[in-house]
Amino acid sequence: MGSIFGQLFRISTFGESHGGAVGVVVEGCPPGLEISIDEIQTELDRRKPGQSSIVTARGEPDTAEFVSGLFEGRTIGTPICIVVRNKDARASDYERWKDLYRPSHADYTYDAKYGIRNWSGGGRASARETIGRVAAGAIAKKILGERLGVEVLSWVSRVQDISAIVDGETVTLADIESNIVRCPDQAVAERMIARIKDVKSQGDSIGGTVDCVARGVPAGLGDPVFDKLEADLAKAMLSLPASKAFEIGSGMEGTFLKGSEHNDRFVNRDGRIGTTTNRSGGVQGGISNGETIHLRVGFKPVATILMPQMTVNDKGEEAELLPRGRHDPCVLPRAVPMVEAMVALVLCDHYLRQLAIRPEGAPLTAWPLSPT
Amino acid sequence: MGSIFGQLFRISTFGESHGGAVGVVVEGCPPGLEISIDEIQTELDRRKPGQSSIVTARGEPDTAEFVSGLFEGRTIGTPICIVVRNKDARASDYERWKDLYRPSHADYTYDAKYGIRNWSGGGRASARETIGRVAAGAIAKKILGERLGVEVLSWVSRVQDISAIVDGETVTLADIESNIVRCPDQAVAERMIARIKDVKSQGDSIGGTVDCVARGVPAGLGDPVFDKLEADLAKAMLSLPASKAFEIGSGMEGTFLKGSEHNDRFVNRDGRIGTTTNRSGGVQGGISNGETIHLRVGFKPVATILMPQMTVNDKGEEAELLPRGRHDPCVLPRAVPMVEAMVALVLCDHYLRQLAIRPEGAPLTAWPLSPT
Amino acid sequence: MGSIFGQLFRISTFGESHGGAVGVVVEGCPPGLEISIDEIQTELDRRKPGQSSIVTARGEPDTAEFVSGLFEGRTIGTPICIVVRNKDARASDYERWKDLYRPSHADYTYDAKYGIRNWSGGGRASARETIGRVAAGAIAKKILGERLGVEVLSWVSRVQDISAIVDGETVTLADIESNIVRCPDQAVAERMIARIKDVKSQGDSIGGTVDCVARGVPAGLGDPVFDKLEADLAKAMLSLPASKAFEIGSGMEGTFLKGSEHNDRFVNRDGRIGTTTNRSGGVQGGISNGETIHLRVGFKPVATILMPQMTVNDKGEEAELLPRGRHDPCVLPRAVPMVEAMVALVLCDHYLRQLAIRPEGAPLTAWPLSPT
Amino acid sequence: MGSIFGQLFRISTFGESHGGAVGVVVEGCPPGLEISIDEIQTELDRRKPGQSSIVTARGEPDTAEFVSGLFEGRTIGTPICIVVRNKDARASDYERWKDLYRPSHADYTYDAKYGIRNWSGGGRASARETIGRVAAGAIAKKILGERLGVEVLSWVSRVQDISAIVDGETVTLADIESNIVRCPDQAVAERMIARIKDVKSQGDSIGGTVDCVARGVPAGLGDPVFDKLEADLAKAMLSLPASKAFEIGSGMEGTFLKGSEHNDRFVNRDGRIGTTTNRSGGVQGGISNGETIHLRVGFKPVATILMPQMTVNDKGEEAELLPRGRHDPCVLPRAVPMVEAMVALVLCDHYLRQLAIRPEGAPLTAWPLSPT
Repeated sequence: MGSIFGQLFRISTFGESHGGAVGVVVEGCPPGLEISIDEIQTELDRRKPGQSSIVTARGEPDTAEFVSGLFEGRTIGTPICIVVRNKDARASDYERWKDLYRPSHADYTYDAKYGIRNWSGGGRASARETIGRVAAGAIAKKILGERLGVEVLSWVSRVQDISAIVDGETVTLADIESNIVRCPDQAVAERMIARIKDVKSQGDSIGGTVDCVARGVPAGLGDPVFDKLEADLAKAMLSLPASKAFEIGSGMEGTFLKGSEHNDRFVNRDGRIGTTTNRSGGVQGGISNGETIHLRVGFKPVATILMPQMTVNDKGEEAELLPRGRHDPCVLPRAVPMVEAMVALVLCDHYLRQLAIRPEGAPLTAWPLSPT
Repeated sequence: MGSIFGQLFRISTFGESHGGAVGVVVEGCPPGLEISIDEIQTELDRRKPGQSSIVTARGEPDTAEFVSGLFEGRTIGTPICIVVRNKDARASDYERWKDLYRPSHADYTYDAKYGIRNWSGGGRASARETIGRVAAGAIAKKILGERLGVEVLSWVSRVQDISAIVDGETVTLADIESNIVRCPDQAVAERMIARIKDVKSQGDSIGGTVDCVARGVPAGLGDPVFDKLEADLAKAMLSLPASKAFEIGSGMEGTFLKGSEHNDRFVNRDGRIGTTTNRSGGVQGGISNGETIHLRVGFKPVATILMPQMTVNDKGEEAELLPRGRHDPCVLPRAVPMVEAMVALVLCDHYLRQLAIRPEGAPLTAWPLSPT
Repeated sequence: MGSIFGQLFRISTFGESHGGAVGVVVEGCPPGLEISIDEIQTELDRRKPGQSSIVTARGEPDTAEFVSGLFEGRTIGTPICIVVRNKDARASDYERWKDLYRPSHADYTYDAKYGIRNWSGGGRASARETIGRVAAGAIAKKILGERLGVEVLSWVSRVQDISAIVDGETVTLADIESNIVRCPDQAVAERMIARIKDVKSQGDSIGGTVDCVARGVPAGLGDPVFDKLEADLAKAMLSLPASKAFEIGSGMEGTFLKGSEHNDRFVNRDGRIGTTTNRSGGVQGGISNGETIHLRVGFKPVATILMPQMTVNDKGEEAELLPRGRHDPCVLPRAVPMVEAMVALVLCDHYLRQLAIRPEGAPLTAWPLSPT
Repeated sequence: MGSIFGQLFRISTFGESHGGAVGVVVEGCPPGLEISIDEIQTELDRRKPGQSSIVTARGEPDTAEFVSGLFEGRTIGTPICIVVRNKDARASDYERWKDLYRPSHADYTYDAKYGIRNWSGGGRASARETIGRVAAGAIAKKILGERLGVEVLSWVSRVQDISAIVDGETVTLADIESNIVRCPDQAVAERMIARIKDVKSQGDSIGGTVDCVARGVPAGLGDPVFDKLEADLAKAMLSLPASKAFEIGSGMEGTFLKGSEHNDRFVNRDGRIGTTTNRSGGVQGGISNGETIHLRVGFKPVATILMPQMTVNDKGEEAELLPRGRHDPCVLPRAVPMVEAMVALVLCDHYLRQLAIRPEGAPLTAWPLSPT
């Protein structure tokens, strides 16, 4: 259990960090979609290790292969399997630690759950698992873009205490990709990069936040009660490695306001209903309202640090963990494509669900004035 | 879609605010559990309107009835249906607003989704829906308590900018229930109550945060990858009305630390593996580690305020919303039992899932040293 | 687990034979559907006990009530809860047998599974559970009829060795309802009724078959691989009490033919693709082909007979079961609406699933020549 | 949708007949299970083409590879991905028919559903998809055998009108594998083989039945109502290519009996409760009763025949299908491992589900007298 996500657009990831391969099976993709392996690869390249001086040096090309589900360059409604072979697996590097429980890693909890564990590089708990998500997310993005004109964009909004100011309504992919930390506020980005390099040189790690917007989402996506859009987004974000916090719209800040200050006023915008402010973050009662969906995720400093740490082994005996190897000093730049992928997956799933719900023949467009 | 929650301990709620009744069907409850309607009622009474001077005055006794699933006072493995009849429904009170989209309510989004909507009192989007959750949560709590000795406790930790200091390891239900705002920090509670009364007198509303701990949770609950314990908890919390933010463990604050400051060190605590700090919030890699699970939810100021507001009607025409009726100036005191219920439901579900996974005969106790 | 059926049009039944009530929650019903409680009641009346001299005399009016999900006579996209109160429950009648395992009943297996059991009248294993299915099926039928023009009809095709000859392409509801055994072949119906009365007078029971057709089903419903239409139909049928066999199209008889005799030839029927024969039973590769779906279900003689039988008690001691009370000598006439309901539920679910899959704007009509 | 099967022991198959590969992802496999690729291969070899003179000559070694989910020869609780590369794909062989709808194949219905189709060799509708099922089934069998001592065995019980007499309580795998048709009744097997060869020489095809037993299944597996064991088995069987009929226990034959003849009498068998006859087929009220589970599946003659057939093309124009290539004259010998696999998957899933339901510490053994 646990490796399947989504109801109608459903993905199932597999693979361990230092096993043969990682990958994903995507079920429920609408037929007839033109998609090439290059479009998948572009997203994977944003996630891959070794892409810059501020991420881990593990040398993985992360080359994706379609194993099934396409025919003459188009999806055909059958499961799409994408596989990425592990190339730079060094399982034996981890042998020295195989009896140790690394602090704030999942070694101990996997043992507690399963009574057995792949001790090489985090096994299934490794961020390599997210390759499958990013690959599937590339498909979801394509569907959202083609069918609805939706654009999903994430960026690093804060590194430790260094915050960027970014306008979610106008930011572009080019802005985000213009520097290695993926922060569209260029001046702030330089400070972030310097901070990460500094921390890396100490063998330490830092965290921060990633923001994400989805623009052009039609009103009506999301289900009431348990499968609220923000609930599914929160689950998606907290399923990412190292995430500890989630906010939608006004988030924590909004809880300091009064209702009279917080409520978003409805207006008629050229025949479409919109709101003058967007503290709701594009979602009301669990359902998209046609405004930009805006969320934020807090990521802790990654647990792997290149410093000695005291811990216990699997017999409960005190032991010292002497670090060695490669590490990501800050997960945020590589988390950006993961966040986008998960948001796209949630939206794509709810888009398909809405197709099944809405009255026959009713349009599904952004900000409909008259929904039926 | 959307009204079902859980995989093995699965609940399905039904009912609208001003319809005939609200309720829940609980599937997957282990057989042989002794439970009385009084135990359900006790929790519902913590949630019900009219319980104090700082909540809405709607006069609902919220009396629960078992419709199925029990035999001679015990569960028998079949679906448990619990129904609560609506008594103080005043659908016609809402007729004046039936064409208006109330700001930051779900009126517009329900129309956009379904093309039709029950305009009386929020319909399905009303917090009355949570009655079914709280009733089901009472069962989940009983199972967790009896089988595992787990205790789930929530309290109001902040009202607007008034923050309480509470020790999650020692706080008791009696502490929480000792005042009407459900904040165990008595001095702060008084200030919170005064603030809520003040805001109420202005016809306005305020928000804040609820904290929740689950103590005694055995290591090993939660699934890797998508169904991480924190992911399911985040979804559960963001599915509650008016919630906008979620944090687990060190939360947002933790994202300002370095890895060397943030990591939780493992130690041997009298034969059980534990950690000296708990920034992980009781969860590592999506799986409980035996420490106290600690989370926080941010609730916005409720959208219903007793002040005139500008908005549009369902034809997109500008209109003024003239308020009238009853309202909750602050959702937090009544959110406390909801948060507890949802956390209990998530834990109970993962407890049953773990029963299916662990090796035959393996114990399932808190902090096992040797998991198999 | 076990009480939920369907993916998008999803029902959840609850209730025991001699408990307070039985009922159903229907999730995923499209909004805006006009439906009255009378339409539900009409179907329940075809299922209810005491309707004729050849069914059990239990005096249940089976009066249905909408508890939620409707507003001004229309569905609104929220869960529809329908409750039927048990009126003629006589739990104490069963007290004499509470330690006995009735042959071919579910008493023993429920005990083996749950370690506890409601011994009054079969509890959850009673056919009263099917009330919820028939009520939900009435909604599904309405949707299929209104949206697609689909008609679902069942009839008793064989009682023991008395077989009817019925043309599934032309049979009408009036034909079926014209006699108490629900066999549209009037001459054969009389023989069936006489046989059932004869068996009843002996205190014995008999079985037979029910046939079902769904006419007007568009091509394209059903999913490949595991959720084939015939697979979901088989599951639905074998989930009915007392069913032991399922056939689709040519069924067992077809397994005696050669491929050259069995294959259905495609032809152009006035601009629509059809087949000259229908041994496929309207389904090819798990997907409807636009021809009439035709299936058959075999029901065993019901286990309750008014004759003494040897068995064991829950201590494994030999004991004699002395019968008393009311019984159905033949389940078939009351199974007819159950079969229709389950077939309608499966089709309605796959119809909604297909709405989510097909290209935007593509028609969903019977026998499309050009599917896109 | 449609490519996922099971609730807790869940499989997801992927791949097309003439694509790059076929395979399966298995989720929910208990950790710590020792299993080798040879054990998977053994089952695949029973399914593979070219294994004898009475099956298709397609030259596929069907070599399986573990891609994930094992560590040092044991399962670790993470998804197990198994891939089989297609070697003898000859997509171009099918180009001549790419516009034609082959009679009783899924060409037309896939087009109607998806508006696009992989026309090479049936694509996803090909029996090659069952490779994933058989591979996953090998794991399920191992679990059932090790944990519960359950044995699942299938055999060809009838080819066209040639029926075998086999005792399901005593038949062995060796008996079944002793001839190429997989019928343990040796004399009858020879007649079956002769018949298949004769039909093959005519370019025609034939069908028949496969029987399956599961011995040693503990009482208590299966859920009431919709997920009855026989319902899930029926779905599993009707999801197999070419299946048209399903029977459990006495099946259709039992519908000719009276209740007094059909009921299975309970007795005490050396401290275990059993039945003197087994017309129930090991299942009562949807739950296993500890007796041997016995079911039967009817398979139609396969649709591919080497004879000219009239049909239409995708424009609805009449056309002649001139056959060419390889074909299975009778699906039954290769269906035997598929049936076993699917039965094992259903049982394994319900076994895990029962672990989550039964009281803590309660044994789960065959025929418990005292279930708690």
